[in-house]
Amino acid sequence: MAAARDLFDNHGFHQSSMAELATAAKVSVGQIYRLFKGKEDIISAIVQADADERCLHMDALRNRLDAGELTIEQTFEQLLLHIVDEKDEALSFDIMAESFRNRPVGDTIAAMCVRFRRYIRDFACAANPDLSGEALDGAEEVVLACLFGLGHRSLSRPCLSATDTARLSARMIVAALRAIR
Amino acid sequence: MAAARDLFDNHGFHQSSMAELATAAKVSVGQIYRLFKGKEDIISAIVQADADERCLHMDALRNRLDAGELTIEQTFEQLLLHIVDEKDEALSFDIMAESFRNRPVGDTIAAMCVRFRRYIRDFACAANPDLSGEALDGAEEVVLACLFGLGHRSLSRPCLSATDTARLSARMIVAALRAIR
Repeated sequence: MAAARDLFDNHGFHQSSMAELATAAKVSVGQIYRLFKGKEDIISAIVQADADERCLHMDALRNRLDAGELTIEQTFEQLLLHIVDEKDEALSFDIMAESFRNRPVGDTIAAMCVRFRRYIRDFACAANPDLSGEALDGAEEVVLACLFGLGHRSLSRPCLSATDTARLSARMIVAALRAIR
Repeated sequence: MAAARDLFDNHGFHQSSMAELATAAKVSVGQIYRLFKGKEDIISAIVQADADERCLHMDALRNRLDAGELTIEQTFEQLLLHIVDEKDEALSFDIMAESFRNRPVGDTIAAMCVRFRRYIRDFACAANPDLSGEALDGAEEVVLACLFGLGHRSLSRPCLSATDTARLSARMIVAALRAIR
């Protein structure tokens, strides 16, 4: 998996062959096929591993929020610090392009978003317990978009550091959630 | 250009050959090379055309805002309606992946973001004239991320319609801009 991430990120998912992956991972092509049906299967496993890791992190944050160890603003700040400037960006864009052309990859990404949306909804309600109905639906949509955009902000070559971005964005998100009804 | 968008969107930028593009566009390969140095050049022209079209739209919105024809919330709503659920998404992810592996494509995207950031800053100050310093820098970063994320929300297979998303997001963005200082 680590070798696949590196190879696909540097050279592109479609431009990399199983033979190249076997060389990079120092295994035989046969050994890869014993674990994965093909490249698409490796991609799905990468998305799954990333989703699991992020959900674990959001789960830990939600527990600390519930225990009163973090304010909601600190919770968003920690979440954003984890997301801003993510790794393997070229690969993640390859995977997203693939999700439109390859139904199973699209389904894996959509399932990941369903899991993220649940946490976002909980955090939105923690910021503003009066949120409900379409205001809550809208908040879920905007916060998800915001997290996605901040995770991929490196494309725009920003001046603001990751820590400043996380701090200022958390403040803005909580302010927005409290200002709507 | 239209043939290139269709072909690259459906089959991938790297998986499409100049010969296939010539057939799709009903021209000869030589005719394409008289206009473009190669596929990378076509990609840059597509990004440039999209950036120009979006800036024209933002320019028109800023004029209507300045003339008092639109409130700032209506301005964001119109901007979002134009951006939410964008076309040729698979192609745009291919291009973004390419921007990390191909400096000229990365530079074209970065230049586009510089133009977008100017409009976003103007809109943020229209929502809250007291914004300055790091609060304004943070607002610029969050709003850019939000627009980017909402443009690519189809990945997450959202339930909320494009018009509801534009309306609710505009409300939230303006609320956030007014709540920070």
